[in-house]
Amino acid sequence: MRIVVLAGGIGGARFLRGLRQAAPEADVTVIGNTGDDIHLFGLKVCPDLDTVMYTLGGGIDEEQGWGREGETFRVKEELAAYGVGPEWFGLGDRDFATHIVRTQMLAAGYPLSAVTEALCARWNPGVRLLPMSDDRVETHVAVTLDGERRVVHFQEYWVRLRAAVDAEAVVPVGAEQAKPGPGVLEAIAAADVILFPPSNPVVSVGTILAVPGIREAVAEAGVPVVGLSPIVGGAPVRGMADKVLAAVGVEATAAAVARHYGSGLLDGWLVDTVDAAVVDEVEAAGIRCRAVPLMMTDTEATAAMARAALALAEEVRA
Amino acid sequence: MRIVVLAGGIGGARFLRGLRQAAPEADVTVIGNTGDDIHLFGLKVCPDLDTVMYTLGGGIDEEQGWGREGETFRVKEELAAYGVGPEWFGLGDRDFATHIVRTQMLAAGYPLSAVTEALCARWNPGVRLLPMSDDRVETHVAVTLDGERRVVHFQEYWVRLRAAVDAEAVVPVGAEQAKPGPGVLEAIAAADVILFPPSNPVVSVGTILAVPGIREAVAEAGVPVVGLSPIVGGAPVRGMADKVLAAVGVEATAAAVARHYGSGLLDGWLVDTVDAAVVDEVEAAGIRCRAVPLMMTDTEATAAMARAALALAEEVRA
Repeated sequence: MRIVVLAGGIGGARFLRGLRQAAPEADVTVIGNTGDDIHLFGLKVCPDLDTVMYTLGGGIDEEQGWGREGETFRVKEELAAYGVGPEWFGLGDRDFATHIVRTQMLAAGYPLSAVTEALCARWNPGVRLLPMSDDRVETHVAVTLDGERRVVHFQEYWVRLRAAVDAEAVVPVGAEQAKPGPGVLEAIAAADVILFPPSNPVVSVGTILAVPGIREAVAEAGVPVVGLSPIVGGAPVRGMADKVLAAVGVEATAAAVARHYGSGLLDGWLVDTVDAAVVDEVEAAGIRCRAVPLMMTDTEATAAMARAALALAEEVRA
Repeated sequence: MRIVVLAGGIGGARFLRGLRQAAPEADVTVIGNTGDDIHLFGLKVCPDLDTVMYTLGGGIDEEQGWGREGETFRVKEELAAYGVGPEWFGLGDRDFATHIVRTQMLAAGYPLSAVTEALCARWNPGVRLLPMSDDRVETHVAVTLDGERRVVHFQEYWVRLRAAVDAEAVVPVGAEQAKPGPGVLEAIAAADVILFPPSNPVVSVGTILAVPGIREAVAEAGVPVVGLSPIVGGAPVRGMADKVLAAVGVEATAAAVARHYGSGLLDGWLVDTVDAAVVDEVEAAGIRCRAVPLMMTDTEATAAMARAALALAEEVRA
């Protein structure tokens, strides 16, 4: 079975680990969000791709869900001693090596897709990890700070400002001109099932779908497309989905997110058992819906979610 | 008193520390060798400039004479895990930060001289450190390896091959097209004394002098130019001066190095007491010569060397 997953960072990566356990024989292609990529200290940092790679490759800091396990911060301390920031982005020494290799390969002319493949050769994530695009896309967020309207990089919104102010607009800068990365459309066209993990529907899955051609390819693949709600009981399980959903005029509810994707894209939708009451509402929107536990408390619980998603896909297909 | 010093790495840096102690009120400008600069992992590394900066700024690994004190190697270990080398060059985590800042500033368009000034703002070396040139100069060494003639970067000759094979030729690639860095000629013209520390006469001081205009400026400054022999008892105190001297047809003796610089450049020359027998030979070549202890065993011994060099300069001037 060929499964394509459109994944963001922590939520996507953890879901993928459950999926690998639930369907160890499946051929999984991950289309990774690159909209939160950022240049720091002259280095190209791809937080979502790295979170997927480290999580599936056994190198992740399990507790925080991003960055490397057993990390140290010598380089960052020294950069701060030079007065060079930003200090709010937590790049560790081990992580720096990844960005140094990536930046060096990009400078040598390799596209991000080839660089990602080279990095994965070390981590053996057990999936094929494809950047959504080799072109630069950067999610920017409009905010009001001290009465002044400003546009900040998504990482600045999320990491520095901790999403404590409202997101007034979310713009994936460059997405309109971006082309899907090598293999992306082919993988979607060849998929047996397409899954949207409980990643952020705006700045993760939404950004991937904003690359011209990808949304259309998913809609026209002719195979079940099943998503898992990142909203449980009216709030995001983690992250700031509520803030960025508000920016695009979508309520932070499991049902509203399903309608936001829409029945033209989504065939099935899993909501958490606490949201069982919305199942009928989602089905009325033309999307098959089931309520199952959606808390990724451990790999077994996450594998059960993946099995439920695959079961719903078969139900849709039948 | 304005003192200009043409310095390489460890020998130059340690001498400068002695000079600072010997003449704390002096205004010292260091013209640093950049011929051993190298790009590693996409980063610009300036070993000699950094050794001077770290040594005078209190950040040096005292025992090995280069790199940062209390250094760790997490980044390098991770790079090796990606299969990315070279592994033979010992870049530590703290040191990486310096190269990251430098590379980022160079990429932003700052010349190396401005970058060096910015880095020194942290280290306060107590001297003005000027790269010999903002233009790229790279010392290459011709060697025969396994019967095959090859040209390697100086760092590869020295660090990877440990100078274990003969240097057949030493070429400061790019030197002929290089221009002296901002302030270099002005500092030489304004100097009261010019010193050549016991740095390598070929790949350190020789490379600086190979930048068109610098040798002429030193020769025409009209002030005492005094050097200290890096060769003691027929062998370099440290490093591979004997190997690279052979490549340019110069014997590894204190007297031969003085004649190599020549009386057109050099007014005074200090040799070690074990080489007292060559004093007459050097003086016969038109260079005032004294024999004093030249082992930089500690800062006090080094300060005594600096005082001897300054005394010889006054003797020459008188």
